[in-house]
Parts: sequence; C-alpha cells; structure tokens
Amino acid sequence: MAGSSVLERRDVERLVREVLTQKMRGAIAPPPSREATGRPTPMRSGQPNPLVVNVSARHMHVTPADLEVLFGSGAKLTKLKDLYQQGEFASEQLVTLVGPRQRIVPNVRILGPTRNYTQVELSYTDGIYLGVDLPLRISGNHEGTPGITILGPKGAITVKSGVIRAERHVHMSQADMDFFAVKDGDQMKLKIDGPCGVLFDRVRVRYHPKVVLEVHIDTDEGNACDLESATGMELFK
Amino acid sequence: MAGSSVLERRDVERLVREVLTQKMRGAIAPPPSREATGRPTPMRSGQPNPLVVNVSARHMHVTPADLEVLFGSGAKLTKLKDLYQQGEFASEQLVTLVGPRQRIVPNVRILGPTRNYTQVELSYTDGIYLGVDLPLRISGNHEGTPGITILGPKGAITVKSGVIRAERHVHMSQADMDFFAVKDGDQMKLKIDGPCGVLFDRVRVRYHPKVVLEVHIDTDEGNACDLESATGMELFK
Repeated sequence: MAGSSVLERRDVERLVREVLTQKMRGAIAPPPSREATGRPTPMRSGQPNPLVVNVSARHMHVTPADLEVLFGSGAKLTKLKDLYQQGEFASEQLVTLVGPRQRIVPNVRILGPTRNYTQVELSYTDGIYLGVDLPLRISGNHEGTPGITILGPKGAITVKSGVIRAERHVHMSQADMDFFAVKDGDQMKLKIDGPCGVLFDRVRVRYHPKVVLEVHIDTDEGNACDLESATGMELFK
Repeated sequence: MAGSSVLERRDVERLVREVLTQKMRGAIAPPPSREATGRPTPMRSGQPNPLVVNVSARHMHVTPADLEVLFGSGAKLTKLKDLYQQGEFASEQLVTLVGPRQRIVPNVRILGPTRNYTQVELSYTDGIYLGVDLPLRISGNHEGTPGITILGPKGAITVKSGVIRAERHVHMSQADMDFFAVKDGDQMKLKIDGPCGVLFDRVRVRYHPKVVLEVHIDTDEGNACDLESATGMELFK
C-alpha cells in the first residue's frame, strides 16, 4: 500500500458528514466550467487585429420578457464585467437549469445585453450530464433544438427550444475577413500548440461590422487542447 | 416570450421538491462521463489491426492491498464487462472520490485486473470540478502527481500521488509499430473527421507485446471532437 494511508474511522465519519452537509446545503455544484484565454500571438504583417482565443463557459442569453419572469417585473441585467467584444458583458444574474434527468446546473451566467431570443449554450459534457442531446448550432439558429427548464429567483420558464452546443467560430470584422481572405460562413482551422496540441477543423467565420478578431471554443474544446498551457496559436484557411 | 412558457407556482414547488429529494438521496451525480467508440476505418493494405479509437471515461486502477481497504479483507475485482484489450475489464467495483474543494465524484469504476500501483485517471473537466490540478502523464508515472481521498464501501484511503490526466496514447504491438514505422514513445497524429473535426497532436505510442491497435482519448477530447458523430478517422506520423 505504498503511497497510501488508511483513514481512521472517525476521519471517514467526519468526511462523510461534511460531504452530506454540503450536499444538503446544495453546495455541491454540478459539472465545472473554466474560462480561459489563449495568449495573443505576434501580429503578422498587415494583420488588423491580434488573434485572441477565448473559452466560452456555459451561459445563457435572454429576452427582456423572459428576464422579467426569472428576475421580477422591471428587471434589468447588471454588469459584472466587460467581455472582449465591445458592449458585451457578463451580467451579475445567474440562473439554474433543470434537465430531463432531474439533474440541475446552478450558477449559469447570463451574458448581456438582452437578445431577441432566449438561448442556452452548453458543452457536450453538460448536455450528457443533464440528459439533453445538444445540436451543434450557430447562435440564434433554434430550428429543431431542444428546450429546458430555467429557474430564476423570482420565477421559472420552460423554453421549448434554444439549447445548443455553439459551433466553434471566429468573430471577424470586414478588415479581418479581408486579411484572411475569407467570407462570412466560411470554415477555417485553428492550431493550438502545446502539451495537448490540437488542430480544430471547421471554425466558422461570423462577420459583424462592430467586432474584432476573436475565436470562441467551448470548455470541452478548451480542456481537450489545454488552452491555458498553449505555446502558440495559428488561424488559417 | 415566444418559445417559452411560464410555470405555475405549484410546478416550481414540485420541481424544487423533487430536486432537493434527489439531492438528499445523493442521486445527483457530479460531472458526466461518456464512453464512446469510433467506428474502425477500412484497413489499409498490410495493416495488421483495424484502427479503433475509444474514449476512456474517468476510472481507477488499484493495488490488491488498497482494494482490500476499500472493499474489505479478501476482496477481489469482479468482472462487469471485457474491455477491448484482452484480459482488461471494467469491474463491478465503484468508488467515490473526495477532492480538496469538498466536492465528490461518486461511481468511479475500477478497471481490472489489479495493478502494482493505485491510480486515478480524470479529465481536466473533472479536475477543475474537484479542485485537483492534474498533471499530464502516461500511466504509472506518478512522480510529482497529486493525491486524493477515495471512499469504498468498507473503508477509505488517501493516496499521496497517482491522480493524472492520461496523456492521449495509442496501444501498439510490434506488428502495429512496424506498419506505422514508429517506436515506443513516439508521438503520432489522430485525425477525426466530422461535424466537430479535430486533429489531435502528440498521440503517444505505447508498446506492449500483447495489445492490439487502440487509441485512448479522454472524455474532454471525445466530446471536443464528437467522436460519436465521426465520419472518418486516420492515424499517422
């Protein structure tokens, strides 16, 4: 039994008691999320914006009407911190998801500002945990997507659709698209070097006039490539 | 509020009651695991074994001595099902992990037969959840690795090391290594085609005389590339 030590009965009892106490308080959270940011690589000649890769942890977008059901009449999103894209922010508002397996995911953050649709973005790890078969979609495409029950402090809703795994994507302005010689909807490749090196295929280009270059991958993808330990990143057609 | 429906107060109360009841029963499991198998691709001319890619969900290996502490004096591993490699099996024995954040992961399966070391293999998703900073290691290399507390039905142990993220790897016989022109310890690439296509870099060759060709990736990697939906797989130097 080298490297191990046997616990005394009283230690086991204490551990079990502590764990059960935590459980009953609801302090045992379900699957984890990690927000990580890859370091921008040196700019290539003529490149309008640095390459930034961010991990999107599970989150929700919400309509003003759904927000009021969840957080009370007149509720507004309040800013916790700015995100990389101007005007986008992590709000202070958190909801709890209840899936078909009667499992819950608490502390899911709403990203603002409010949208004209309510949408929940999860990883496959989350989906398997909750019992939701996640379709791979670009934000806002909800045709044939599953729903979920969402609990807020003042009310609950069950959306009939809008639960997705976000397709890995790269936000680009016109200048970014010109530099990489791609257009909206094209697919690119993202190479992450490091101890868990990965080349991600099918990174979808998403054009918006007011964004700057930013790749979004989810927590499964961020953990698979260990983005935090990345030694280099490259985006190409 | 298109696509949403407001729940009645009694529905919310029922949901919360059900969830809390489940919690107190301990039926709310922590992060998920999925075991998936990629379909073997057509054999290339002269290829001694088909390419098989399997996802390793979190699991544990155990010494006979630690097994007896956890499951009682004289305890033996009993077979639930055979694994792909001859002689390897998923046992019926399950343990619970307790991490430094006082979070638990129950139902962690022991893979047999018993080893001459006790080792816990987790994904980064699991590690973040439990609060364990996982080193990337090949099985059996425990130098500088963290420990964890493991609860069994008859006792508990705290191992001082042996908790790892397994480095992605490919098991090969001499015939497999000859075919791919690689040697033990080399790194290869694994390409997974499909809706979440990924090319995994640094797939470590692990030689053993009695194995057949099999790639092992973890649940983060399996979810990142959506192995279940893979349309093709290729292994190369």
